[in-house]
Amino acid sequence: MPHGPRIPTPTLERLATYLSVLTNLRSSNVETISSLDLEEHTGVNAAQFRKDLSYFGEFGRPGVGYSVRELHARIKAILKLDRTQPVLLVGAGNLGRALVGYPPLAAGNFEIVAVFDNNPSKIGKELWHLMIKDVAKIVEENRQLEAKIGIIAVPANAAQQVADQLVEADVLTILNFAPVVLRVPPHVKVRNVDFIQELAVLSFYLPD
Amino acid sequence: MPHGPRIPTPTLERLATYLSVLTNLRSSNVETISSLDLEEHTGVNAAQFRKDLSYFGEFGRPGVGYSVRELHARIKAILKLDRTQPVLLVGAGNLGRALVGYPPLAAGNFEIVAVFDNNPSKIGKELWHLMIKDVAKIVEENRQLEAKIGIIAVPANAAQQVADQLVEADVLTILNFAPVVLRVPPHVKVRNVDFIQELAVLSFYLPD
Repeated sequence: MPHGPRIPTPTLERLATYLSVLTNLRSSNVETISSLDLEEHTGVNAAQFRKDLSYFGEFGRPGVGYSVRELHARIKAILKLDRTQPVLLVGAGNLGRALVGYPPLAAGNFEIVAVFDNNPSKIGKELWHLMIKDVAKIVEENRQLEAKIGIIAVPANAAQQVADQLVEADVLTILNFAPVVLRVPPHVKVRNVDFIQELAVLSFYLPD
Repeated sequence: MPHGPRIPTPTLERLATYLSVLTNLRSSNVETISSLDLEEHTGVNAAQFRKDLSYFGEFGRPGVGYSVRELHARIKAILKLDRTQPVLLVGAGNLGRALVGYPPLAAGNFEIVAVFDNNPSKIGKELWHLMIKDVAKIVEENRQLEAKIGIIAVPANAAQQVADQLVEADVLTILNFAPVVLRVPPHVKVRNVDFIQELAVLSFYLPD
């Protein structure tokens, strides 16, 4: 758990957005950036940006702006993405396949180190470069891998059981793609990605 | 655009969550539900649930709870999901393939009616049951299809151009999977799904 003040979740979400913009700027060889430029790229206003950074000490110099390289490195470190984070994926269906083959994952310093499924016809087959393993062995497998992040990409009716297995395997954070609210112990953090929910919100705005 | 009071976005997000829980309850043949039961399933407290519904008139009867069938039908109608919503997908890569093959989409009343790409080696090939079309023809194609929802599943550096093309094709809402902030006219609603951002937020909570 982090030291110091409790950081609001929206601040963490914006830090992740700043990081993604800074990564793009670095690859375009931009060297310095003002908070107004960042507002232009992120849609987050400059005052909010400075407030978000203020949780983590001093950044930038007045009138000079921010060094893209420095800001990028510091936000990476804050989010613990200055190292590769190993990830367990459960669910070797279409979504799992898309995730393993998703280039921004590696670019973001996440590495899917193992893929699990409960379907005997999938276990032992390859998904890209990984051999699909039996989810019943996840605790054992993760003793060596020591991944702390799990991704759930299984149908809704299997998601809670998979969450329980991930928790038993000592995962501390879960990214859940199944449209269910998971019950996990208080020390485990869950974030949900629910395409259908997003589409349903958009659908509301459509004309009758 | 909706009539009546402006509905807060978090209310719409929760309505989509209630809908997903109610869909599950219907398939389990549950007939009535209290707001406390719903709290159990959704993690949203009962008072918030009643407040969210209050934007849309009277629901349920005191002491009796809610008819699952009725509540399900009314929330579906509010979110305009009592009809099938046609969707254009741009990007026939791994993610696009996963989306077309994602069963909850159809269950949620969304139908991907056309898939587009700009890669000549993909155009004309099949993605599941759909033939991949040239994104340069999207305006023309959507004249007949009249889809109002677009999904962007292309790499970050192509996303803004695709957004412009979707807007030109008269799409009103966009679900964006690319890690960029899109610029669109004020009449177009965008929601972003950014896996990497979600993982980055989780990563912050990991031990050093």
